[in-house]
Amino acid sequence: MRKIEHLGIAVKDLKKSNELFSRLFGREAYKEEKVAGEAVVTSFFQVGDVKIELLEAESEDSAIAKFIVKRSEGIHHVAFAVDDIKAEMNRLKNEGFELLNDVPKRGADHKLVVFLHPRSTNGVLVELCQDINE
Amino acid sequence: MRKIEHLGIAVKDLKKSNELFSRLFGREAYKEEKVAGEAVVTSFFQVGDVKIELLEAESEDSAIAKFIVKRSEGIHHVAFAVDDIKAEMNRLKNEGFELLNDVPKRGADHKLVVFLHPRSTNGVLVELCQDINE
Repeated sequence: MRKIEHLGIAVKDLKKSNELFSRLFGREAYKEEKVAGEAVVTSFFQVGDVKIELLEAESEDSAIAKFIVKRSEGIHHVAFAVDDIKAEMNRLKNEGFELLNDVPKRGADHKLVVFLHPRSTNGVLVELCQDINE
Repeated sequence: MRKIEHLGIAVKDLKKSNELFSRLFGREAYKEEKVAGEAVVTSFFQVGDVKIELLEAESEDSAIAKFIVKRSEGIHHVAFAVDDIKAEMNRLKNEGFELLNDVPKRGADHKLVVFLHPRSTNGVLVELCQDINE
């Protein structure tokens, strides 16, 4: 794992939270993006070389909606940049970590992503992401 | 706020979690440190230019022990590096954020630190930290 790529924060109202985090960071979100496969709409702030991703659910079935019902708003996941997601998935499986998907899927921000189950990672929802070169 | 300085993860058993995160990151913790004022013992991993801090409570009264009782293990806080913590505290107070301490206190890793109340920051426990030049 090369670096923290982004930190994901679950929010109820993206517009209000964009305003709040703009005041916190002293800068605006630089983009918004829908991720249809996850039923979320996201925004991104840049802080140093790490992104802060805010996520609002677009459906009650989305993982973000369920997280907010269970734990309320807050930090949802941490994503690490990897150069070769398949190699890293194999390494982590061999180390005993539990992957939430067997095949990388398309995430926000031009990434292939996979999540590790928090029960294998001390309660931390860990995402791995690799840039898609298009 | 210049960059994410570290991500704090609450754990029940630092020794077991050091072993787990060593397998996750493919590298060892580079140091352990007690923070008497917070009744915690911590360890640090370096991932890119961000640190991952594991925190185990040394007393049932510590904020980490209470967090684990309420929410179980997982991401506890995110810390941002600032150059001038007092100026940043003033800026954030004026923006309506709620500080948990009025005067910066001594944290782990040679830092002056202050926390923002999560009810003013979308459920995210935010720490600001400034290097102590000694």
